[in-house]
Amino acid sequence: MKRTVSAFRSVPPFAQGLVRDLRVRWALNEAGLPYDEHLIGPEDQKSAAYRRLQPFGQVPVLREDGLELFESGAIVLHVAEQSDALMPWDATARAQVRTWMFASLSTVEPPIMMLNVFDLQPGGPRAGAMDMRSVVVGMIEKRLDALAAFLGDREHLVGDRFTAADLLMTTVLRILRSTDLVAKRPTLDAYKQRGEARPAFRKALAEQMAPFNCR
Amino acid sequence: MKRTVSAFRSVPPFAQGLVRDLRVRWALNEAGLPYDEHLIGPEDQKSAAYRRLQPFGQVPVLREDGLELFESGAIVLHVAEQSDALMPWDATARAQVRTWMFASLSTVEPPIMMLNVFDLQPGGPRAGAMDMRSVVVGMIEKRLDALAAFLGDREHLVGDRFTAADLLMTTVLRILRSTDLVAKRPTLDAYKQRGEARPAFRKALAEQMAPFNCR
Repeated sequence: MKRTVSAFRSVPPFAQGLVRDLRVRWALNEAGLPYDEHLIGPEDQKSAAYRRLQPFGQVPVLREDGLELFESGAIVLHVAEQSDALMPWDATARAQVRTWMFASLSTVEPPIMMLNVFDLQPGGPRAGAMDMRSVVVGMIEKRLDALAAFLGDREHLVGDRFTAADLLMTTVLRILRSTDLVAKRPTLDAYKQRGEARPAFRKALAEQMAPFNCR
Repeated sequence: MKRTVSAFRSVPPFAQGLVRDLRVRWALNEAGLPYDEHLIGPEDQKSAAYRRLQPFGQVPVLREDGLELFESGAIVLHVAEQSDALMPWDATARAQVRTWMFASLSTVEPPIMMLNVFDLQPGGPRAGAMDMRSVVVGMIEKRLDALAAFLGDREHLVGDRFTAADLLMTTVLRILRSTDLVAKRPTLDAYKQRGEARPAFRKALAEQMAPFNCR
C-alpha cells in the first residue's frame, strides 16, 4: 500500500520539531507502517489542488489507497485503530484512549496555542496585551495542574501502557518548550521526556527535521 | 441501561445554550438514546469525587454501564459509533466524519474560544489588548472563509446526510452568536440554522435550558 503524509518543506526555527505532521509520523513509526512524505510550501497551501485535500491549507494530510484524511488527531486515531501498538483492543480502554486524545487537543492544547499567538507576534508580545497574556498563562497552568494531579504516579494516561493518547499529549506539552511551564512541573516533565525517549518519536522527529536541515 | 450526562445547574446568561453538554444531549436525542442528567455546581467541579470522573472539573461526563467518559468530542464519537443516526457504516465515510469532528474542535473552535477569553473579561475587552483581539478575529475569519469555501452548495460536511461532524461544527459556530462573524456569511449562517432546526437539537437545547429557567 502506498501511504503519503504531507509536511512543510521549510518552517521557521520556532516551529521546527513542532509541526503537526510529527504526530502522524510518530504514530506510523510506532505502528511500523511505512510512508512517503509529500513536502509542500506556502504556494501549495493556497492552491486549489491542496485545498481539495485540506480545506484549511494546513498539514498533515494522509493519503492511502484512495482514503484522504486531514487533522492530525483524526489521522492518529485512524492509524491507532489499525494497530495494537497505539491502542488496546478492549472497547472500554479504547473509549478512554479516545477521551484523552480529545482532552489533549480540545482541553490542553487550545490555551497553549493561544499563548503562541501572543508570543509569536512580530517583535514579541505586545506591551498592552501583557495582562491578557497573564490570563492565558493562568488558563494553561490550571490545565497543567489538573493533568499532573491526574497523572500522579501513573506512567501513562490510560492503563499501564503507551497509547495514542500519550502520543498526542506529549506533542501538546512540547509546544511549551520556550517556557518553564512544563519544566517546573516534575510529573509532567518526566512524562513528556518518557514520550520523547521512544525510538519511534526520535525517528519521527529526525524525519520532520531532515528537509529543514538540508537547506 | 442507565445513562447519565453531567451538566451545570446554573450558568451566566452568556453561556446558556452553549455549554458542552448540549453536544452530548443532541447526539443522544438524534440516536434516540434516553439519558438522565446529573446536575452539578462549582463545589462539585472542585470535589475529588467529580475530578475522578473529569480531571479538569468540566462538563459533560457520560456514565453508562460502568463506562465513564469525558470530553464532548469523545462522547459524541462514542454515541455516533452506536447509531447510524450520526454516522454511516461505510469505513471511508466514518473516517471522514471523524476528520471533520476533529476539524471542528481542533481547527475551528480554538480561535473562537480565544475571542471569548478577550470578550468575557470583567468590564469587556481590555483597551490595551484590542489589537491582539483583531489578530484573533482575523484567525477566525480565515477559518470561517475556508469552511464556507469547502461547503459551497453542500448541505453537510460529509456525504449528503447529517452526521456527528455537522453536530459538532454547528455547536462551534453557535459560540459566535454575539458577533456577526457567522451571520455575515450566508453559507455558514444557513448551515448553522439547518442544524439548529433539527428536532433533536431543539429538544437538547430545551433540556439544557430547563434548570436555568427554573431558578
